[in-house]
Amino acid sequence: MSDFPRVIEKIDALRAFVSQTRTAGKTIGLVPTMGALHEGHLSLVRRSVEQTDVTIVTVFVNPTQFAPDEDLSAYPRTLDQDLDLLAQAGAAVAFVPSNEEMYPPNCSTTVSPCELSSALEGEFRPTHFGGVLTVVLKLFNICQADMAFFGSKDYQQSLVIQKMVEDLNVPIQIEVCPIVREPDGMAMSSRSVYLSAEEREIALSLKRTIDLAKDQIQQGQRDGFELITEMRQSLIDGGVTSIDYAVVADAKTLETLDPIQLPCVILVAAHVGSTRLIDNCVVE
Amino acid sequence: MSDFPRVIEKIDALRAFVSQTRTAGKTIGLVPTMGALHEGHLSLVRRSVEQTDVTIVTVFVNPTQFAPDEDLSAYPRTLDQDLDLLAQAGAAVAFVPSNEEMYPPNCSTTVSPCELSSALEGEFRPTHFGGVLTVVLKLFNICQADMAFFGSKDYQQSLVIQKMVEDLNVPIQIEVCPIVREPDGMAMSSRSVYLSAEEREIALSLKRTIDLAKDQIQQGQRDGFELITEMRQSLIDGGVTSIDYAVVADAKTLETLDPIQLPCVILVAAHVGSTRLIDNCVVE
Repeated sequence: MSDFPRVIEKIDALRAFVSQTRTAGKTIGLVPTMGALHEGHLSLVRRSVEQTDVTIVTVFVNPTQFAPDEDLSAYPRTLDQDLDLLAQAGAAVAFVPSNEEMYPPNCSTTVSPCELSSALEGEFRPTHFGGVLTVVLKLFNICQADMAFFGSKDYQQSLVIQKMVEDLNVPIQIEVCPIVREPDGMAMSSRSVYLSAEEREIALSLKRTIDLAKDQIQQGQRDGFELITEMRQSLIDGGVTSIDYAVVADAKTLETLDPIQLPCVILVAAHVGSTRLIDNCVVE
Repeated sequence: MSDFPRVIEKIDALRAFVSQTRTAGKTIGLVPTMGALHEGHLSLVRRSVEQTDVTIVTVFVNPTQFAPDEDLSAYPRTLDQDLDLLAQAGAAVAFVPSNEEMYPPNCSTTVSPCELSSALEGEFRPTHFGGVLTVVLKLFNICQADMAFFGSKDYQQSLVIQKMVEDLNVPIQIEVCPIVREPDGMAMSSRSVYLSAEEREIALSLKRTIDLAKDQIQQGQRDGFELITEMRQSLIDGGVTSIDYAVVADAKTLETLDPIQLPCVILVAAHVGSTRLIDNCVVE
């Protein structure tokens, strides 16, 4: 068994490690995760290992980004396996704080997200991005990383985080990495463990719908209303339980486009059984 | 004329200076101000010069901490004189950004203050602390200082900032310095230039009222309601135009105390003519 990654649970201990690392003139890369790691996360870790001297991966299921009716308690926790995977990917440190370590009693200063946060995920998960930004800023401040790596499966999240970094002048460089997919095309997700075999088939309809929309846009479809209607029909035909959104939006402002203009992003969020899945694709 | 402080107007230029300074192994002290500098500010600058290698003083009248009906446009601006005073006090850099530099269009991610912010100043200036924390965090991120210095005349502000640093794990040490007073006892304030000679006399009633309350507490007065009633009468007798608050509160939680317990803080905010003044005193 590998000695790496070093597992750190306390903020003070991580700060000491960070301070040593910086004094030694080494650069730090940060990959914030909620654990239950899959190839999507590992691609971020490998990219960080490539780009920086020392990679810190945080494994923390952040309670403040879940609404009371969401899957906080059910969220998969696979720490032993995560640590093995992080060792293989070359992470130096796994920061695994407790809830109490991250949110002591009366912790009440938070980050309010930019306007980009109000539509799409923000409409269906109104407190989500506030929770995400607050924990991400805390992790930035604790790790004092030179670079942080996020996956573009959470497309809106990556924009909202980049806007926070810009608006609050956070001294960190953000790199957003491509979606990693299963061989059949499904975007990798920690939540896919919730899916039955039958639901797993139905889940493919997200990617199929996005491909359909992408093809049509590339063939010249510019009627946003018509395309969205077709996307929703494709998801329903595919068997999803309900659709939160299926849209074609401006790739930077996330405003819904009709007529469609390029570059745009196709974004889908749908429920398959009791599991909520998202996927997206940028069309340049 | 001195070559110091070096005046920097752009964030990128300040970042370059900060990066050089850190690479040289020097510590950085930050004193955020809105200019119109007086001995209160200069005591912070001198303390920073004592405690750190390089002191950055920011001079920025932050629009987001003023409500529409407040004195943003009238706020005194005395940059040439400020720079002379900063040279004498030993500041290395004066960071003097424009509004556009600090708040480019669509800048919309903000900091939401902790619960300590809702009473007192927060009741009378509901958007004030959100504006203060957002600009202070931006300045922390731009300057990457080791220490930042604030005056305890803004007592509640100093608590709210310290709570932000704690809650968001900001890697900076905060030092809160004593109130500096005029020979007659009035707490130094950039806003005192608004006062006529007659109003300047009336303004003394804030300090007189605080001294009265402090004496009574030290003599054993524990009846909060009785003491507050006396404080309000003292301010009215002194000629203030209106009182926002006159309270005795817990020195940490800012909860109003009745019965009074130590340590407590006596806090007063009152209008003298059209000028709003604050003052306070901790009783250990």
